[in-house]
Amino acid sequence: MSKTAAFGEVMMRLEVPGYGTLSQDNQLKYSFSGSGVNVMSALARYGHESYLVTTLPDNPLGEAALSYLRKLDIRTSLVHRGGKYVGMYFLEHGFGARPSRVTYTDRLGSSFNTAAYDDSLFGKAAQQVELMHFCGITLAMNDNVRGAMKRLAREVKRSGGQVVFDCNYRPSLWGDGDYDQARPHYEEMLELADIVLMNERDALLTLGMESSVQGRMAQLQDLVPRVAKQYRIQTIAGTHRQINGDNTHSLTGYVYGNDAFYFARERTFSVYDRVGAGDAFASGIIHGVLQETPLPQAVEFAAAAAMLAHTVSGDTPIASSNEVLKAMTDHIGDVER
Amino acid sequence: MSKTAAFGEVMMRLEVPGYGTLSQDNQLKYSFSGSGVNVMSALARYGHESYLVTTLPDNPLGEAALSYLRKLDIRTSLVHRGGKYVGMYFLEHGFGARPSRVTYTDRLGSSFNTAAYDDSLFGKAAQQVELMHFCGITLAMNDNVRGAMKRLAREVKRSGGQVVFDCNYRPSLWGDGDYDQARPHYEEMLELADIVLMNERDALLTLGMESSVQGRMAQLQDLVPRVAKQYRIQTIAGTHRQINGDNTHSLTGYVYGNDAFYFARERTFSVYDRVGAGDAFASGIIHGVLQETPLPQAVEFAAAAAMLAHTVSGDTPIASSNEVLKAMTDHIGDVER
Amino acid sequence: MSKTAAFGEVMMRLEVPGYGTLSQDNQLKYSFSGSGVNVMSALARYGHESYLVTTLPDNPLGEAALSYLRKLDIRTSLVHRGGKYVGMYFLEHGFGARPSRVTYTDRLGSSFNTAAYDDSLFGKAAQQVELMHFCGITLAMNDNVRGAMKRLAREVKRSGGQVVFDCNYRPSLWGDGDYDQARPHYEEMLELADIVLMNERDALLTLGMESSVQGRMAQLQDLVPRVAKQYRIQTIAGTHRQINGDNTHSLTGYVYGNDAFYFARERTFSVYDRVGAGDAFASGIIHGVLQETPLPQAVEFAAAAAMLAHTVSGDTPIASSNEVLKAMTDHIGDVER
Amino acid sequence: MSKTAAFGEVMMRLEVPGYGTLSQDNQLKYSFSGSGVNVMSALARYGHESYLVTTLPDNPLGEAALSYLRKLDIRTSLVHRGGKYVGMYFLEHGFGARPSRVTYTDRLGSSFNTAAYDDSLFGKAAQQVELMHFCGITLAMNDNVRGAMKRLAREVKRSGGQVVFDCNYRPSLWGDGDYDQARPHYEEMLELADIVLMNERDALLTLGMESSVQGRMAQLQDLVPRVAKQYRIQTIAGTHRQINGDNTHSLTGYVYGNDAFYFARERTFSVYDRVGAGDAFASGIIHGVLQETPLPQAVEFAAAAAMLAHTVSGDTPIASSNEVLKAMTDHIGDVER
Amino acid sequence: MSKTAAFGEVMMRLEVPGYGTLSQDNQLKYSFSGSGVNVMSALARYGHESYLVTTLPDNPLGEAALSYLRKLDIRTSLVHRGGKYVGMYFLEHGFGARPSRVTYTDRLGSSFNTAAYDDSLFGKAAQQVELMHFCGITLAMNDNVRGAMKRLAREVKRSGGQVVFDCNYRPSLWGDGDYDQARPHYEEMLELADIVLMNERDALLTLGMESSVQGRMAQLQDLVPRVAKQYRIQTIAGTHRQINGDNTHSLTGYVYGNDAFYFARERTFSVYDRVGAGDAFASGIIHGVLQETPLPQAVEFAAAAAMLAHTVSGDTPIASSNEVLKAMTDHIGDVER
Amino acid sequence: MSKTAAFGEVMMRLEVPGYGTLSQDNQLKYSFSGSGVNVMSALARYGHESYLVTTLPDNPLGEAALSYLRKLDIRTSLVHRGGKYVGMYFLEHGFGARPSRVTYTDRLGSSFNTAAYDDSLFGKAAQQVELMHFCGITLAMNDNVRGAMKRLAREVKRSGGQVVFDCNYRPSLWGDGDYDQARPHYEEMLELADIVLMNERDALLTLGMESSVQGRMAQLQDLVPRVAKQYRIQTIAGTHRQINGDNTHSLTGYVYGNDAFYFARERTFSVYDRVGAGDAFASGIIHGVLQETPLPQAVEFAAAAAMLAHTVSGDTPIASSNEVLKAMTDHIGDVER
Repeated sequence: MSKTAAFGEVMMRLEVPGYGTLSQDNQLKYSFSGSGVNVMSALARYGHESYLVTTLPDNPLGEAALSYLRKLDIRTSLVHRGGKYVGMYFLEHGFGARPSRVTYTDRLGSSFNTAAYDDSLFGKAAQQVELMHFCGITLAMNDNVRGAMKRLAREVKRSGGQVVFDCNYRPSLWGDGDYDQARPHYEEMLELADIVLMNERDALLTLGMESSVQGRMAQLQDLVPRVAKQYRIQTIAGTHRQINGDNTHSLTGYVYGNDAFYFARERTFSVYDRVGAGDAFASGIIHGVLQETPLPQAVEFAAAAAMLAHTVSGDTPIASSNEVLKAMTDHIGDVER
Repeated sequence: MSKTAAFGEVMMRLEVPGYGTLSQDNQLKYSFSGSGVNVMSALARYGHESYLVTTLPDNPLGEAALSYLRKLDIRTSLVHRGGKYVGMYFLEHGFGARPSRVTYTDRLGSSFNTAAYDDSLFGKAAQQVELMHFCGITLAMNDNVRGAMKRLAREVKRSGGQVVFDCNYRPSLWGDGDYDQARPHYEEMLELADIVLMNERDALLTLGMESSVQGRMAQLQDLVPRVAKQYRIQTIAGTHRQINGDNTHSLTGYVYGNDAFYFARERTFSVYDRVGAGDAFASGIIHGVLQETPLPQAVEFAAAAAMLAHTVSGDTPIASSNEVLKAMTDHIGDVER
Repeated sequence: MSKTAAFGEVMMRLEVPGYGTLSQDNQLKYSFSGSGVNVMSALARYGHESYLVTTLPDNPLGEAALSYLRKLDIRTSLVHRGGKYVGMYFLEHGFGARPSRVTYTDRLGSSFNTAAYDDSLFGKAAQQVELMHFCGITLAMNDNVRGAMKRLAREVKRSGGQVVFDCNYRPSLWGDGDYDQARPHYEEMLELADIVLMNERDALLTLGMESSVQGRMAQLQDLVPRVAKQYRIQTIAGTHRQINGDNTHSLTGYVYGNDAFYFARERTFSVYDRVGAGDAFASGIIHGVLQETPLPQAVEFAAAAAMLAHTVSGDTPIASSNEVLKAMTDHIGDVER
Repeated sequence: MSKTAAFGEVMMRLEVPGYGTLSQDNQLKYSFSGSGVNVMSALARYGHESYLVTTLPDNPLGEAALSYLRKLDIRTSLVHRGGKYVGMYFLEHGFGARPSRVTYTDRLGSSFNTAAYDDSLFGKAAQQVELMHFCGITLAMNDNVRGAMKRLAREVKRSGGQVVFDCNYRPSLWGDGDYDQARPHYEEMLELADIVLMNERDALLTLGMESSVQGRMAQLQDLVPRVAKQYRIQTIAGTHRQINGDNTHSLTGYVYGNDAFYFARERTFSVYDRVGAGDAFASGIIHGVLQETPLPQAVEFAAAAAMLAHTVSGDTPIASSNEVLKAMTDHIGDVER
Repeated sequence: MSKTAAFGEVMMRLEVPGYGTLSQDNQLKYSFSGSGVNVMSALARYGHESYLVTTLPDNPLGEAALSYLRKLDIRTSLVHRGGKYVGMYFLEHGFGARPSRVTYTDRLGSSFNTAAYDDSLFGKAAQQVELMHFCGITLAMNDNVRGAMKRLAREVKRSGGQVVFDCNYRPSLWGDGDYDQARPHYEEMLELADIVLMNERDALLTLGMESSVQGRMAQLQDLVPRVAKQYRIQTIAGTHRQINGDNTHSLTGYVYGNDAFYFARERTFSVYDRVGAGDAFASGIIHGVLQETPLPQAVEFAAAAAMLAHTVSGDTPIASSNEVLKAMTDHIGDVER
Repeated sequence: MSKTAAFGEVMMRLEVPGYGTLSQDNQLKYSFSGSGVNVMSALARYGHESYLVTTLPDNPLGEAALSYLRKLDIRTSLVHRGGKYVGMYFLEHGFGARPSRVTYTDRLGSSFNTAAYDDSLFGKAAQQVELMHFCGITLAMNDNVRGAMKRLAREVKRSGGQVVFDCNYRPSLWGDGDYDQARPHYEEMLELADIVLMNERDALLTLGMESSVQGRMAQLQDLVPRVAKQYRIQTIAGTHRQINGDNTHSLTGYVYGNDAFYFARERTFSVYDRVGAGDAFASGIIHGVLQETPLPQAVEFAAAAAMLAHTVSGDTPIASSNEVLKAMTDHIGDVER
């Protein structure tokens, strides 16, 4: 097994239980997540030693976040304490035809986004791990953390580690979809990345590429190889999702490597909590790469892991690799006694 | 935007959480609703100034009801305080093949049903609003409140306002379906009404009309124009519902006006809480009439509002008009961030 | 051990959890209680076979009440099913200087208060048990149930059983303290009773007696023997309570029998839920009489039972006789492992 | 109506609420169930007098279990108190593609499994009832309880009662599927049984029979008549279940008697809580036999009862016979008011 | 009754239920409060028309806050919608010797603190009310809101209204107690104020005054008259609190007016939720001034209101004036039925 | 800071929320604790690296326990996975005069008590830490774990580490107080121990020593020095507790070392959750010894830590050393903002 890390913010998730709204209810459940948290937790379940590089305040909220990370089996020796705030988001679960809603607090002032990152710590982190995960959400924050992210990615490359970059473009974080502002930062990260999570929309919109073909699938197959070539990326993977009216989603995963595409078969399944499922897919791909699993199996594993992540409460995948392997078959099990 | 009101009882809803029964559980969630409450709350969300004409006791339960109305943005200046009790019902949620169950407490002794209604208050209420909503459930209570209801409806007409009447015939409230007893009261209200919510069953059973055609849809198209003509009603609207085995319902809305029928396309959707969805449809129609929306759009709006009302917890619709407009399309959105 | 019964209403208790109010919260805990329920449950814990003579509706609320009675080990073979409603009350817990509040629903329309009581059932009930408990709250309801209560009490006497009568005068149930209206009914029950729960206030106010002495304790010692003599009552018992500012109460119990008074030592203790503690005291006295415990021990047992009843959640005493015996000492135990 | 009993363990069910896991949550809901408990509770709902023959410890957990049995309307006069522990299991609800998980505590040391069973009590129990239910899970425990089970079954036969045996083979309880060890015990019970719950898997695996035909249904029709003949069993019944990806199951029930098979039509329905549904089916069959319902109706009743048991929270069926009769039609009801 | 308003931030209170910490639990209860909210809600309970001048974002959190204000009977017509965030704080309840802890989120970026305040709205607000409440916490935020606060206070004076200023100095909001930075702002507000809430510490520390006497009470009596004189303040009031080891506090209230001190008798009482009790005291004083209650009664009323505020859940006082009047006596009531 | 470990069982604590009983409620909160867990968690809060040497099953309960340990900042690299069960106990909170009750499940079959302990693991553990904590509860289990405990203690001594032994004699675990059976095992552990937690009762009863003096305190001062001398123990410490009627306890701590006694002043305080407070005291003493704090301060620190442990929910102390230092003063703080 490998040593892995993620650089990313720990967010407090505050969730209205059941299907009520913030105006209707007076209770919340909370947990701590974030793209890096989710990926590290999944990799820890698969047996890898997993670290988070982040900053948390030295107050009861930071304490609670830290306890939560440990509970998820994420190593906290690379967590810096400082600053004053934890980023937060409120989640109101939708139902059927009514979409879920996420409302953020002011995360720009969070410990993670305001920390003065210490390059010697980065050096230490880079030497300690074989692979470091980064996410496009961090890129959307501010110059401080963007700069730190790139320095750390370069440090990882320098130490011979692999860089994972999940494009994860969120229009609302870039002035409602200012792709031009985002593009150079994305390009810089793609230059550094060995494994990238994306699909044709990232190529068309964020990278501003053009495609002469029609249809999502055709565009994917046109654009992804061009991205891989241009940025010399070994492995690119991602998903297509369709949301159905009866609380089910349909998901197809792909991976592109060694000049070839491999697709997981489309899965349609009941959805309990959709948030964080993309991170589960990414974790499955990363695990495959680390284990040198052939890509056709790796993408099926990742797709099954993503499917399971839709069936659990919370952002963070909790399936073991055995559970994912079972879920790769079509058979749905009865109560396990 | 308009000034609107409803005359109706505030009911306390006491609901077993999840899918347990009163014998199984020991906890309840409570809220306050009622046909008038639901319609006024929906219209307030759409931007109208909304009042409730009702009576509530001067005790902690009345206090709680009043707080709840204010929370729903319903104006309480026309709420009279007096009497001793709040009407209540207990709701046990069904699941799939197991139907939900509603058990009432003794609502005939409630403040609303025993109040000595003051006609000067009625005059004031009638002058204050452009439209007043009434419901057939109130008609089923007792002579006191039936009388008050009719006097208030006449007062509204006299002041130039519009009268909405939702037939809402509940067999259990009329000695297990004594249509003859109900008929004259319904006829009296239909004479006064400008907008009526009903379907072919109300015409056949409550009004005792006959139809020579077969099938629900044909009978609807036969009977509704005759009702409209006979009682000189401008707008009649209603729904057909089918309950499927997999926690979904199928719903078709119609509106009849200007001698023509307009149908919303049938929608099939997952159902979370079915109670109150009829009031959401009524609110959509009323909003359409107040806004002078063309009927084809109005009925689609009303049907989408009804669909959304099935996806929220509680009797009372909570969607804004923007949210209803979004739900009119077929596309089901991902998490809104 | 003996066979005992109580004639009384089953009330649904709907309680705001913790220390919130109905306006603040949106959740309730519910249980079923009533003076007769509480006494029968306590006697069942002490080893007696305990029945309730009451009426419950044939609907989900009646079903839930019945389940709850069985859970309390109360035999339900003398429960009649009929009528439509269950009496209810809402409880908002006070804290320290803020008193608790109880709000009733319309209990006059309850199954218990509207039932046509069948004297042949009463005969059967009277023959089945050695002792029947009645309560002054029932006396305050209406002529129907008052009449039934007296007929049943006479039937018990005729069958050679003992009648227990707990005065339990509640001013709010008698037109805010109309003692003249209540008096004849109380006198009739006292004529029939073998064991009576009361104190000097009942004598002064409800019975309209006069005392030339001052102070609660002196008046008690003046009046109770006169009541015992006038109505030929074997055993009279009751308590004096004082409410302190720090969530503690002080309680003194007494019993009068064989021309002598016996007092339990005053106990001061932290109070968790005060409702139903009087029924625990009554149960202790009844248990003592049934077991022919000497009165000095009986009153200490009853007082300890009452104290413990203040420390449990809900109206209904749950201590076993062993637990009460332990609580009669001054020692307060550590965690029992 | 009849007098019935079951011999079996009372298990404490500790359930993570909603769809969380034991690692994620910090709360549990608990109840008490067991195959015998479920069947007796269902038969009590159908109007039969129902007893449980079991052993429970004399401590707060035994007390809680006893209260719960009474609540379910199960008579407890044949419950022995002794030993020290209650068997327990933890349930984590699956969702969609993620299966539910059950984790047991050490039930071999439970009061039920360690009790020294008194044959005079067994004689009394056997004389008191017309039918006694046994379950293959008990057979898997230890020699002590296996011996008691067989002695009691023989005692029931001797008193002229009927013996019901539900095969209920659980591989994990027999050293991960040691059929040879289980076989003689199963054979012994089948010799004693009048009504047996099983399907072709029990015949093939547990009994080690062979079939020359292919397919579950064909094998069932081949094997069940041979079992009935060999062990002189009057009625054999069982189900085939299929688990679908969208939180629905498909279920077909059969009954074999008088040399003929009768099948209930296949039902597909949304599933809320699958545990205990087999006991609901068994209860329906037993009720049919006791009521001498023709087998075609009996198996439809049992299948509808099983379907409803999937829609309720907890292991224990709660539907009345009226509710089951309603569910036998295809129509799914709207809210019952 | 009067028209009153407060200028202040609406804070979301996120509270760990019971006595757990953020690291231990995974649930929160939420409500909305703030010094202005608390005072306006209390005055609404006393019968005054109460407005809040504030800014809330146009998102689900702002919506929830607005609903909550309406529920508290606070008029929202002067609430501006804009900005992006709601200020928040997390509360972990202490117990006995363990103090409660409050942790803030980044409130400087809240809608209230970043709004561009419109002076024409201020003019409208000032004309609409007779009295406006301001709080020292607002003064600690930033120049934007400090400026707005002072302009609004001046506008109120210009329109002939009264200005209330509650010093409410919080060291942690001023760089851990930088009194020099705070002083000029406090002095400016005191110049404008008619009613001031403070005690000797504000004079000594915030205003930097000196006193030659020893002891809190003596210093209070030395300093408050000097403050009143210097800033021409009509009414100054405040409290001394002592925290005892057994979950009780002792509180003494004072008011200074017409050149004289009036003290409420010291009260010692059990404390459930201490937050917001100071606002209850302020509301009692303001109510007294508006009603022209003689100061000795006014300060007793305010002290009883403060005591009651310690016994309720949440920051916001909920007692009616009748409940406060009852609590002014020494008698502690039994359950109110 | 030091490296420390404990050898002990992880127990699942299942607690009825609030003050209900297992018969009354249907919900539980769960956590994981144990004497070793509590001490290690406290020492981790004080800054020491803390390990647990224990065995947990490889199933969802073992997974949940492991997550919980990590959350408490206990290192799990010395946790062995094996066996089948987790020991459990149910806690019903008492109130005032009603004591709390603990009911155990069958812990003898737990993974911890049935594990085949590997001496090479013990050697590794002993070398890794400076101090190992053992508890008399483990001694009461069975020969397997008793043997392992002694072997590990000897291994620690051999490696130069310190052995802590907490006598923690529980009569119910030794056949209701069979001191003769326990004595040789206690003597063996005392021979090995450097730090012992006990008081005069352990000397009199468990060790069977005799004292000619009267009174707990005099006996303590007579017996403890004799124990220290006989077994060559450097530090002995313990507490005297008194339980008061108003939910407060009084506690006095002592430590004996260097031939002298040091007593912490008696503290009386409100108690929220008494379980685990002894472990908090032990942790304070251990921390003092590790830090070489003078004994008078160490015992005050330990007593304050014990007091704080009574104010938190759960068995496990959560105070940081700063919080304990603050609690050593008499001042009780207001809300910390």
